[in-house]
Amino acid sequence: MKKGNTRDVILHTASELFQRQGYHGTGLNQIIEKSGAPKGSLYYHFPNGKEEIAIEAIKLMGQHILESAREDLSEKDTAIEAFQHHVAKIADVFDGKACVDGLQIGLIASEMASSHESIRLVCKSAYEDWQALYTECLQRFDFETERAKELAVVINSLLEGASILAQTNESGWPLRAVAKQLPALLVH
Amino acid sequence: MKKGNTRDVILHTASELFQRQGYHGTGLNQIIEKSGAPKGSLYYHFPNGKEEIAIEAIKLMGQHILESAREDLSEKDTAIEAFQHHVAKIADVFDGKACVDGLQIGLIASEMASSHESIRLVCKSAYEDWQALYTECLQRFDFETERAKELAVVINSLLEGASILAQTNESGWPLRAVAKQLPALLVH
Repeated sequence: MKKGNTRDVILHTASELFQRQGYHGTGLNQIIEKSGAPKGSLYYHFPNGKEEIAIEAIKLMGQHILESAREDLSEKDTAIEAFQHHVAKIADVFDGKACVDGLQIGLIASEMASSHESIRLVCKSAYEDWQALYTECLQRFDFETERAKELAVVINSLLEGASILAQTNESGWPLRAVAKQLPALLVH
Repeated sequence: MKKGNTRDVILHTASELFQRQGYHGTGLNQIIEKSGAPKGSLYYHFPNGKEEIAIEAIKLMGQHILESAREDLSEKDTAIEAFQHHVAKIADVFDGKACVDGLQIGLIASEMASSHESIRLVCKSAYEDWQALYTECLQRFDFETERAKELAVVINSLLEGASILAQTNESGWPLRAVAKQLPALLVH
């Protein structure tokens, strides 16, 4: 996050609140108060209000996760090692923490997919970006395109689901259990 | 759900609303209004209010999912077939639907785990019940206890994560992608 960038400060605060309290549980006044942004600047940057803030916050979270994932996946010599490294990094973040800021769009996705089409689509697009990155990584390690795409969906499901379990358990162990089974999944 | 059981009608309505709108987005008055239950009976059955309703609703959803899963898993002759059948049944429910009633505790788990310890624990316990059932099923098909337990966590993660993707895509295809990869995961 760039320092002094009011728009990003608002988005960062909003995404933290959405993750802690859900979309409906978070009010614009609370976003203004917690971010310290002047009320006018909130309406200047987000003339369409809360829904627009949520959409931009999901985009920002999505990009942030994408960049970390890209970094994790580039550091190893096999697909199994690359994804195990990525999962282990996420597992570490969850240890002993009930709430992981900026990590998860699953909450807002499941809360809003049925009622706000625009939010559903931006979540769908974040998931597609991650899957494209996973596919690209698997192809680099000689998986065929179709299989790489299928495995990318499965890995994405594993990560989202194990993150919910990790949050519920206040521990990264469910992600480590997933990492341990990756070799079976990622055989050529 | 037993007909005429006010307590269950309230819980069913509440769990539907929690899943659509999140915990914070759902008010007691809305639960009363939508369930048609007299206000007094809500306070009679749930003297501790919304948190108590959420806890009992999660228990009810958890039991409901557990019973369907037990049925699905008992109908086939191999572990792969049993879990593929189970996943396919869930996939069918998601086709073309943005919101699946009574199916998912992931939303409330991720929304509340960080702020309400009692809700975190009841979600954790629902996940443990499902994992115990999966473990039992895998043991029946000759998986060793330790491996069965680990795989149960992985299957649970896959199902929760793929359900979020299915909801975001308004289609069961992410669950079908998961089903297709189960044979690799469930080799002896």
